[in-house]
Amino acid sequence: MSALSPAVQVAVARVRDEVAALHAELVRYGLVVWTGGNVSGRVPGADLFVIKPSGVGYDDLDAAAMILCTLDGEVVPDTPGSDRSPSSDTAAHAYVYRNMPEVGGVVHTHSPYACAWAARREPIPCVLTAIADEFGGEIPIGPFAIIGDDSIGRGIVETLRGHRSPAVLMANHGPFTIGKDARAAVKAAVMVEDAARSVHLARSLGEPHPIDPAAIDSLYDRYQNVYGQAEPPPR
Amino acid sequence: MSALSPAVQVAVARVRDEVAALHAELVRYGLVVWTGGNVSGRVPGADLFVIKPSGVGYDDLDAAAMILCTLDGEVVPDTPGSDRSPSSDTAAHAYVYRNMPEVGGVVHTHSPYACAWAARREPIPCVLTAIADEFGGEIPIGPFAIIGDDSIGRGIVETLRGHRSPAVLMANHGPFTIGKDARAAVKAAVMVEDAARSVHLARSLGEPHPIDPAAIDSLYDRYQNVYGQAEPPPR
Amino acid sequence: MSALSPAVQVAVARVRDEVAALHAELVRYGLVVWTGGNVSGRVPGADLFVIKPSGVGYDDLDAAAMILCTLDGEVVPDTPGSDRSPSSDTAAHAYVYRNMPEVGGVVHTHSPYACAWAARREPIPCVLTAIADEFGGEIPIGPFAIIGDDSIGRGIVETLRGHRSPAVLMANHGPFTIGKDARAAVKAAVMVEDAARSVHLARSLGEPHPIDPAAIDSLYDRYQNVYGQAEPPPR
Amino acid sequence: MSALSPAVQVAVARVRDEVAALHAELVRYGLVVWTGGNVSGRVPGADLFVIKPSGVGYDDLDAAAMILCTLDGEVVPDTPGSDRSPSSDTAAHAYVYRNMPEVGGVVHTHSPYACAWAARREPIPCVLTAIADEFGGEIPIGPFAIIGDDSIGRGIVETLRGHRSPAVLMANHGPFTIGKDARAAVKAAVMVEDAARSVHLARSLGEPHPIDPAAIDSLYDRYQNVYGQAEPPPR
Repeated sequence: MSALSPAVQVAVARVRDEVAALHAELVRYGLVVWTGGNVSGRVPGADLFVIKPSGVGYDDLDAAAMILCTLDGEVVPDTPGSDRSPSSDTAAHAYVYRNMPEVGGVVHTHSPYACAWAARREPIPCVLTAIADEFGGEIPIGPFAIIGDDSIGRGIVETLRGHRSPAVLMANHGPFTIGKDARAAVKAAVMVEDAARSVHLARSLGEPHPIDPAAIDSLYDRYQNVYGQAEPPPR
Repeated sequence: MSALSPAVQVAVARVRDEVAALHAELVRYGLVVWTGGNVSGRVPGADLFVIKPSGVGYDDLDAAAMILCTLDGEVVPDTPGSDRSPSSDTAAHAYVYRNMPEVGGVVHTHSPYACAWAARREPIPCVLTAIADEFGGEIPIGPFAIIGDDSIGRGIVETLRGHRSPAVLMANHGPFTIGKDARAAVKAAVMVEDAARSVHLARSLGEPHPIDPAAIDSLYDRYQNVYGQAEPPPR
Repeated sequence: MSALSPAVQVAVARVRDEVAALHAELVRYGLVVWTGGNVSGRVPGADLFVIKPSGVGYDDLDAAAMILCTLDGEVVPDTPGSDRSPSSDTAAHAYVYRNMPEVGGVVHTHSPYACAWAARREPIPCVLTAIADEFGGEIPIGPFAIIGDDSIGRGIVETLRGHRSPAVLMANHGPFTIGKDARAAVKAAVMVEDAARSVHLARSLGEPHPIDPAAIDSLYDRYQNVYGQAEPPPR
Repeated sequence: MSALSPAVQVAVARVRDEVAALHAELVRYGLVVWTGGNVSGRVPGADLFVIKPSGVGYDDLDAAAMILCTLDGEVVPDTPGSDRSPSSDTAAHAYVYRNMPEVGGVVHTHSPYACAWAARREPIPCVLTAIADEFGGEIPIGPFAIIGDDSIGRGIVETLRGHRSPAVLMANHGPFTIGKDARAAVKAAVMVEDAARSVHLARSLGEPHPIDPAAIDSLYDRYQNVYGQAEPPPR
């Protein structure tokens, strides 16, 4: 890591801790099984991000196991974890970071209710105030894309650029979510499964009432700007 | 807290402990995800209540994190937690406390089965003895109301005043529950999700048998007056 | 407890331990919420049984909290827990013990999938080998009965006497299970919810294949006589 | 164990540890209740395998409780656990090991969503990329077979021989899975329930989009050959 400035090294260490810890939230909310799913986080002030290793279980994910990558998706040599392969979704994460500079975190899961909507290629309609709050409208479907080149990343970016929703349901695959940092992307992954489940249950016994678009706009605006605590000053 | 009498200060401390601890029950029963949901409790003998801070995770909710509010929903200054924003549902809780003096606790969640009925704006029919016991009949739907003014609180009060049910499913939103204290309101939140789930499952494969209204009355009366242990003397 | 012989006192202590511990299994398998549900166990060699107190949470159920009752459902005075009310289902348990001498344990829950079948008053068909193993055929529906007299107990006994199934789904209420001891009755409560869930899921998307009655007989016979370890010698 | 060479004794000890520990994964992922389900692992370099005892709870499964069997399904005398009966599915496991030399682990569960497909005798269609990755196509149905002779083992082998899927749903019974070792078979058991659940949910509200067979082939090939970390050198 001699090529990284001391300030970047500090930032990398912080993102490693954060990304490692956030994987436990995927387990807590039942969004993943076995070694599936992954979280990544951009290193502020550098063209780098940190991501889960491929095929490693959730009990074995500490900060040193995370893998540091360039925005081309290449592992940075001679850093902790660099002897292992990064997540097989690394190219998709890298594509998002290269093309959406406002994004600081990306999450992918195969959470079951979201996957059910994805298998039908059906967007989740905005019929609950919680969906209006977090997603500002329906949760969209992305294209069918095969792993192994840029097509998943491109599908995510083309669907989410200019969209209020931080989540896309990739067709026949599952949800990818983005956020200003890894924590926000994990929150979106939790909320997309919660929305997918509640609307699935609602639809199972009839048709949910739609929410008026003006009410959706009002809810989204309030939640994004008023909810929660004031932001702490940036570190 | 110099303006509060010693007796009120003792009562506040007790309600802070109780409300903080009860949030763990929402997690235990799967009624909330991330920072969603909230519990509040009235301070006996004072025009005050204690409520969860806004947008704070369930792992970080100890007694000192709870926020003390007046019945107008204003944070009491210079008390523990008063530097943070209270739950974004504080106005709704305050409206209930102002208008229903018999209510000592209020709970709000987005529990998934209850939200499914709320999205369809369909009351949960009383087709199980456990629903007759706790709710004395069907669990009603409240109006669609946007956060930010008194309309949620008003919808809760207008629906539940004079009703046996301690729970209302606010349209396209989710359940609010009330009780003689915060613990009773949490119990109602647990029971409304349990009822919503069992009746959802029953309805998925056919039509449940109705229960005769006289039997509902008899069950409700017995459960409210005979079930459980005799009340301990008030503290 | 001076009226009880030393041998009976030893037996009571053992059943208290067993019944207290078994309540944790109801929680582990998600069969109960809040203070609902109850386990009882007959005291071998005496006309007594041990049961959960009414309306007490599952975190507070140690051996001393269990309540010793006669087969008439009366609390034995001056024994641990005798200052509290026993489960509101005590009369039903007592009726079963009085009328089915081979029964050593009774369990009641409101487990959600079983309650869904109970609300429709529809028996669970025997379409999985696990159901043939444990229940020897379909899981039957009992009558609608109101709490407060012998009618629940009578409905259980009339449905299960001479039936292979150790579980009955009381109409619009929920499952009651029996066994040679409390542990066997708890196992039946776990298995009835498992059966109710798997068959619910199967039926949601079509019609399960029936199992030939001769195969059901063969599975039931083998499981009751060959499965598991040889019985330890009686204590 | 004097008849076993020191090298085999070391291998047996390692497989006992592995098989005992893997049973906890069945509990973690909700694939089993009470004493149901079982894991076995072949002992490399010997005609032996290790399996769960019959009817013993998951809290009591340490390495010494596992039972060593020959490939005829007979317990090896005078070894730890040999005084107890092995899993009632031992004959089926033994049949698989005798007839599929490439198989090093076998798992059986009654996981609920997989059992639902099994009760309808309906294969799980390959409509999610995760199913293409792990199963390379649909998850097949095996014949209806009664416990007690070779018919379950024969049904497993006839269905899975030459099939990409490591899982078969035995009709009206439940899933059996195989793998190069016990860990791989447990992974397949986890993934078959995950697939069964997601496709169940998808089908509940409509028809999932099919995935093009060429894309399935490409996904399967990549996942089997690229995903995860390079294999460590054999011990």
